[in-house]
Amino acid sequence: MPAHNSEQTPAKTSITVLGLGLMGTALATAFLKAGHPTTVWNRTPSKTAPLTAQGATPAATPAEAITANPLVLVCLTTYDDVTELLHPHTTALAGRTLVNVTNGTPVQARKAAAWAEEHGIAYVDGGIMAVPQMIATPAAYVLYSGAQEAYETYRPALAALGGTRWTGTDPGLASLYDLSLLTGMYGMAMGVAQSFALIRSEGIGAREFAPLLTDWLNAMPNVLVPGTAEAVDSGHHLTDVSTLAVNQAAFPNLLTTFTDQGVRPELFAPMLQLLDRAIAEGHAQDGLSRLVELLRVPRPDGS
Amino acid sequence: MPAHNSEQTPAKTSITVLGLGLMGTALATAFLKAGHPTTVWNRTPSKTAPLTAQGATPAATPAEAITANPLVLVCLTTYDDVTELLHPHTTALAGRTLVNVTNGTPVQARKAAAWAEEHGIAYVDGGIMAVPQMIATPAAYVLYSGAQEAYETYRPALAALGGTRWTGTDPGLASLYDLSLLTGMYGMAMGVAQSFALIRSEGIGAREFAPLLTDWLNAMPNVLVPGTAEAVDSGHHLTDVSTLAVNQAAFPNLLTTFTDQGVRPELFAPMLQLLDRAIAEGHAQDGLSRLVELLRVPRPDGS
Ligand SMILES: NC(=O)c1ccc[n+]([C@@H]2O[C@H](COP(=O)([O-])OP(=O)(O)OC[C@H]3O[C@@H](n4cnc5c(N)ncnc54)[C@H](OP(=O)(O)O)[C@@H]3O)[C@@H](O)[C@H]2O)c1
Ligand SMILES: NC(=O)c1ccc[n+]([C@@H]2O[C@H](COP(=O)([O-])OP(=O)(O)OC[C@H]3O[C@@H](n4cnc5c(N)ncnc54)[C@H](OP(=O)(O)O)[C@@H]3O)[C@@H](O)[C@H]2O)c1
Repeated sequence: MPAHNSEQTPAKTSITVLGLGLMGTALATAFLKAGHPTTVWNRTPSKTAPLTAQGATPAATPAEAITANPLVLVCLTTYDDVTELLHPHTTALAGRTLVNVTNGTPVQARKAAAWAEEHGIAYVDGGIMAVPQMIATPAAYVLYSGAQEAYETYRPALAALGGTRWTGTDPGLASLYDLSLLTGMYGMAMGVAQSFALIRSEGIGAREFAPLLTDWLNAMPNVLVPGTAEAVDSGHHLTDVSTLAVNQAAFPNLLTTFTDQGVRPELFAPMLQLLDRAIAEGHAQDGLSRLVELLRVPRPDGS
Repeated sequence: MPAHNSEQTPAKTSITVLGLGLMGTALATAFLKAGHPTTVWNRTPSKTAPLTAQGATPAATPAEAITANPLVLVCLTTYDDVTELLHPHTTALAGRTLVNVTNGTPVQARKAAAWAEEHGIAYVDGGIMAVPQMIATPAAYVLYSGAQEAYETYRPALAALGGTRWTGTDPGLASLYDLSLLTGMYGMAMGVAQSFALIRSEGIGAREFAPLLTDWLNAMPNVLVPGTAEAVDSGHHLTDVSTLAVNQAAFPNLLTTFTDQGVRPELFAPMLQLLDRAIAEGHAQDGLSRLVELLRVPRPDGS
């Protein structure tokens, strides 16, 4: 219970959390558990109840919430929602630090930072690498970029959410790292959904199959990721693991079986086209790492 | 060194391996290391050299290889290659056990089993859940289905390759499990390739990014798989992790950023269509597990 030790410790930073969806609620809960006085606001007011029960101060309006504390964290569905909520309150935000952990693009983050700078708001962009249930566990961390001084000031408070990882002063960087990691996760999510659809098509229980799939997927990152990184940075894609040729030969077995078993192939069909293109362009003996190069849109000069 | 302990042990089963590509070579090596007299044959004869150096007996022809031993394991690129290689040798194969670990579909495996039965060959279909480098390590296993008695007889020998996992007497089952797991892996592989393509588009080194991606992907199977299995088997897809609505809102940020950064979006575009369909069909508050249901082709009666 780090919040209540008996030594003399500096007062905990007070924080405002705007947006109490699944994630915002988890974030506010973590601040409260770590002993930070926390003011909360949500568009649908009923969602504040579980947090006030834990000691949060509910704010009746966004303006009241913003002016309550020097550190304001916002977690809504999209950047458009953030713009809609905050642009009427630029004056109230001036002089404060705004940490925006809403999912968005690097372009959106840079735009938000430019707006903030114009209005004297210290803007820190964040990318949450966790589901709500992981917040405040050792597995969770948040990527940050933008206003470095404000970040350093509030880093001890932000650490209540999980690890803190600084990516740079370009405000778009946290989002770029975030989206790159989410891309990996969505690939896995596509694979998991398709995998369960296939095994279930034969009447095999998902719970029965799950341990096999978990073990298999747990073994894969260490097989796939470091080797791919090595190949991509060195430009040497020849493999002694599994060639694009053998993957191209095996992949139609997946698509045929999806169809045979009444499973829609749409999530996986583009991968065969990519493998076919890789072979057509002469990369049969390379490994899957070659696909990283083939996903790059050629520049107008052909490079 | 279990192969050379000093106690009196029964003679090790002699084995023939047909096909010495990356995987066949790893399999033959594992048999040799475990002390099994191993006869090898490959279409391109030069690939036998590293194995004969380790004590394997090279066969000059497929017929010579097949008749050398009661257990014949075949590992070629496709089932069509297996058919082309083995159908001229049905007489030689009669009375022996054929273990086919070539990647194929359940339909192909059942067809091969029917051909084998017709010719008095005990047919075991296999699905290798490992890359060559993992063979004979604790992480590797092989799924088997088909002729159960033959499988039980040779299971101790097959255990030289890694774990042995029986899936049933339907010869298509090993392939079905294999393809379901490969589906999960290819999903992850698509994610990994796309993820590296995105991070590299900003000039960030793949080796620098790799540890983040590895840690993130290692955390995900335990988040995604058991919850999905639970939801799929129970039919309850409501989530407290992350709704389809919030995924639908975040996913365009990926596609937009791919385009902004000069990365081709083709592998990921179908996922947005699937998310859109999920919302259109009324599943906004469900989790990603709902996608498993949406990937099923409706039966003609609409169920
Ligand atoms: N859940 C996850 O696993 C996860 C993981 C990492 C990142 N994230 C990101 O975190 C953000 C929030 O996700 P979530 O799971 O908490 O979503 P959620 O449960 O759907 O909550 C969305 C929140 O945004 C509020 N909101 C939406 N539009 C608004 C507007 N125009 N004005 C004011 N408030 C508005 C909602 O208020 P109401 O209650 O009034 O609707 C609600 O508080 C998203 O950007 C998401 O991508 C989520
Ligand atoms: N590599 C992996 O990570 C992995 C993992 C699990 C399963 N598998 C499966 O294992 C099988 C072999 O993969 P691999 O990686 O070893 O592929 P590979 O390195 O490309 O080797 C293919 C083998 O098949 C032989 N072959 C192909 N067509 C033939 C024909 N018509 N007649 C006779 N021999 C023929 C080749 O002989 P030549 O030397 O004469 O060309 C070679 O020995 C595939 O079904 C693959 O899906 C591979």
